[in-house]
Amino acid sequence: MESRRAESFSDGVFAVAITVLVFNLLPIAQPGFTQHSVTAVAWPQYVAYAVSFLTIGIMWLNHHTMLAHIVRVDRMTLVLNLFALMGIVAVPFPTALVANSFARNAWPDARQVAAVSYGILMIAIAICYSGMWQYLAAHQDTLADKPMRPPRSATLRFTAGTAGYVACVFLAAFGLPDAALVGYALLAVYYLFEHLPAPGGQPANERPPG
Amino acid sequence: MESRRAESFSDGVFAVAITVLVFNLLPIAQPGFTQHSVTAVAWPQYVAYAVSFLTIGIMWLNHHTMLAHIVRVDRMTLVLNLFALMGIVAVPFPTALVANSFARNAWPDARQVAAVSYGILMIAIAICYSGMWQYLAAHQDTLADKPMRPPRSATLRFTAGTAGYVACVFLAAFGLPDAALVGYALLAVYYLFEHLPAPGGQPANERPPG
Amino acid sequence: MESRRAESFSDGVFAVAITVLVFNLLPIAQPGFTQHSVTAVAWPQYVAYAVSFLTIGIMWLNHHTMLAHIVRVDRMTLVLNLFALMGIVAVPFPTALVANSFARNAWPDARQVAAVSYGILMIAIAICYSGMWQYLAAHQDTLADKPMRPPRSATLRFTAGTAGYVACVFLAAFGLPDAALVGYALLAVYYLFEHLPAPGGQPANERPPG
Amino acid sequence: MESRRAESFSDGVFAVAITVLVFNLLPIAQPGFTQHSVTAVAWPQYVAYAVSFLTIGIMWLNHHTMLAHIVRVDRMTLVLNLFALMGIVAVPFPTALVANSFARNAWPDARQVAAVSYGILMIAIAICYSGMWQYLAAHQDTLADKPMRPPRSATLRFTAGTAGYVACVFLAAFGLPDAALVGYALLAVYYLFEHLPAPGGQPANERPPG
Repeated sequence: MESRRAESFSDGVFAVAITVLVFNLLPIAQPGFTQHSVTAVAWPQYVAYAVSFLTIGIMWLNHHTMLAHIVRVDRMTLVLNLFALMGIVAVPFPTALVANSFARNAWPDARQVAAVSYGILMIAIAICYSGMWQYLAAHQDTLADKPMRPPRSATLRFTAGTAGYVACVFLAAFGLPDAALVGYALLAVYYLFEHLPAPGGQPANERPPG
Repeated sequence: MESRRAESFSDGVFAVAITVLVFNLLPIAQPGFTQHSVTAVAWPQYVAYAVSFLTIGIMWLNHHTMLAHIVRVDRMTLVLNLFALMGIVAVPFPTALVANSFARNAWPDARQVAAVSYGILMIAIAICYSGMWQYLAAHQDTLADKPMRPPRSATLRFTAGTAGYVACVFLAAFGLPDAALVGYALLAVYYLFEHLPAPGGQPANERPPG
Repeated sequence: MESRRAESFSDGVFAVAITVLVFNLLPIAQPGFTQHSVTAVAWPQYVAYAVSFLTIGIMWLNHHTMLAHIVRVDRMTLVLNLFALMGIVAVPFPTALVANSFARNAWPDARQVAAVSYGILMIAIAICYSGMWQYLAAHQDTLADKPMRPPRSATLRFTAGTAGYVACVFLAAFGLPDAALVGYALLAVYYLFEHLPAPGGQPANERPPG
Repeated sequence: MESRRAESFSDGVFAVAITVLVFNLLPIAQPGFTQHSVTAVAWPQYVAYAVSFLTIGIMWLNHHTMLAHIVRVDRMTLVLNLFALMGIVAVPFPTALVANSFARNAWPDARQVAAVSYGILMIAIAICYSGMWQYLAAHQDTLADKPMRPPRSATLRFTAGTAGYVACVFLAAFGLPDAALVGYALLAVYYLFEHLPAPGGQPANERPPG
């Protein structure tokens, strides 16, 4: 199967998953809301929305960078892709855990559960991406049209990011969920503004003239 | 009409349907959740999410394998496709029945109703796919550009899968809903890892060089 | 702007709108559901789901038939398209009105309001389609690459369908909401199986070889 | 990366965001609705649905006009695009604030909060669009294949629109939320029917023959 099809399906899933995040905001607008409930109480919802939105956005970007190296997909690629998407579609769930536990729930353990869940999901997605990347590199003879150069910087990035999420999970598990959440936000912002060269140089199928 | 259009619309429907599954998880994150409600109580929700996600993912894959044989669609193909999509979009509903009856409902009959509903929907989708496949094969002169080879293995696969779902429905109807659910999960995993050659060999419109 | 872009956006909107229909089913699966509530009480939900699914599916089909005649769109086409989509995205709302009033509400006036709303939305969408079609025909010099033949049968179809919906609205308004709903279902099935030749013959941009 | 990929993802996000608006209507159809609750009480919901639908639709149109000038995107373009989409996906939230505060909430301050939130989001989106436009213009050497002509009329349009939203926010903040909402509706209708020439003339990648 051509990779174009898998990309178009994945794009659709990313687009819907990123939009599902707004459903965590809609209950704030329930009839009977007040200025206090919309601004003072709900700010964790807005922060969680922004952080998860940027996080899914970066995942979409990395997904495309990964698939830009190949022109065909086999069944195993699609299965690995499906597991990665399963994680991405689930992101709004720990986002809601985090936002609700900080916005309306004074119980510290709820915040801990939320922060740990968020980090575990991020690590699970990183593992899926890493597995997919290694599978693509190992099967580039059949999947790609030209050799994939070893994406050393991408590997470093994956490793550093996953290490960051693991550290945040430990912080949350040992009683510092607030610090873990600050860590998640910093990780999202860091990825957003890093200007890493695309792994493997130019996208495989098109180079700009000159 | 070209089949490309029907594919792009179908891809969109699959992408949204698979993402709707996360809406069954969001109520777990209600304000006031505890560690117990998120982990101990909600695990059937997570299992149901994963099984249905993989199931819809495989259905998407089979849908594309089917449409890769043709280059044009007629009105009847679109109507059959619409019936298949009607089943796929409904998957989150019996998924919620199953997850809710196992997570919060001790009443055994609810589990039975849920497991039977899930299986019946799977059988209905299998019938739609089978009907669509037979229609395409019967009209390959006008719909395809090159002859479709008889998809014997695909026929076997459809038959075996449908038989599996029928067996699970009987298990559930005769008082073993738990066994039926294990059956649904096994069917999803089985399909995921089988490496069946694409029916009809290479996709009709593109062969890899060499 | 090329019409391809407007099509791809519209396809996405259709795909999401048709999938939103399942959200009317999800409350049936609330914790504490029984066999009675899932089967005996909820059947109007299933019928409403099926009828609206087929109706939106046919609207998608007609939308594509319409846009297949042109290769470019101007701002007015996009505005008219936006109004049509505004109607289509709203379809799950009167669908919920109809299903809820028949499933759980004994009050006859609620059924009447629901059936009238459903019909009025259908008529509004038909007017948008008709206006769009007439605009495209009037501006075919700039929008299409080859002359659009007068779509007499399509005009007849639009007129007959709209007349059917008007009749159903009158039935509902004068105390027969049940008869109106049967009418909506029959209109959906009728459109589904009519084998009208595509207006204007072959799609503008591709003819099958031979 | 080619701009086609960013467009297809953005199209998907726009399509889902515009469809999410119907979720503000679905609660009107709760079991037990009456003719009064559907018509007399809920009309602000319908007006808010229509205004926000048209507003997102115009944003989609402007987004495409902007991206039609370029053929490649870099990481910074994608980050700016992500911020713009973050605003667009959030539109259903202040839409719900506005609709709910006018439909069921007599408290004047709620209307004020709602109207101010709506305007601030519109201004934030306008700033994102403006920043993206300036970035594209400043980097046209690497992103576009032919020179972008200075989009003077587009700049005027952006400035006038943003000034309109700023004025509405001030109206709402100083005790006239109703006037602000009329302003939002007028701004949407104004943009809808203005026939501005596409900035930069014909789309960069295709001119109609002749």
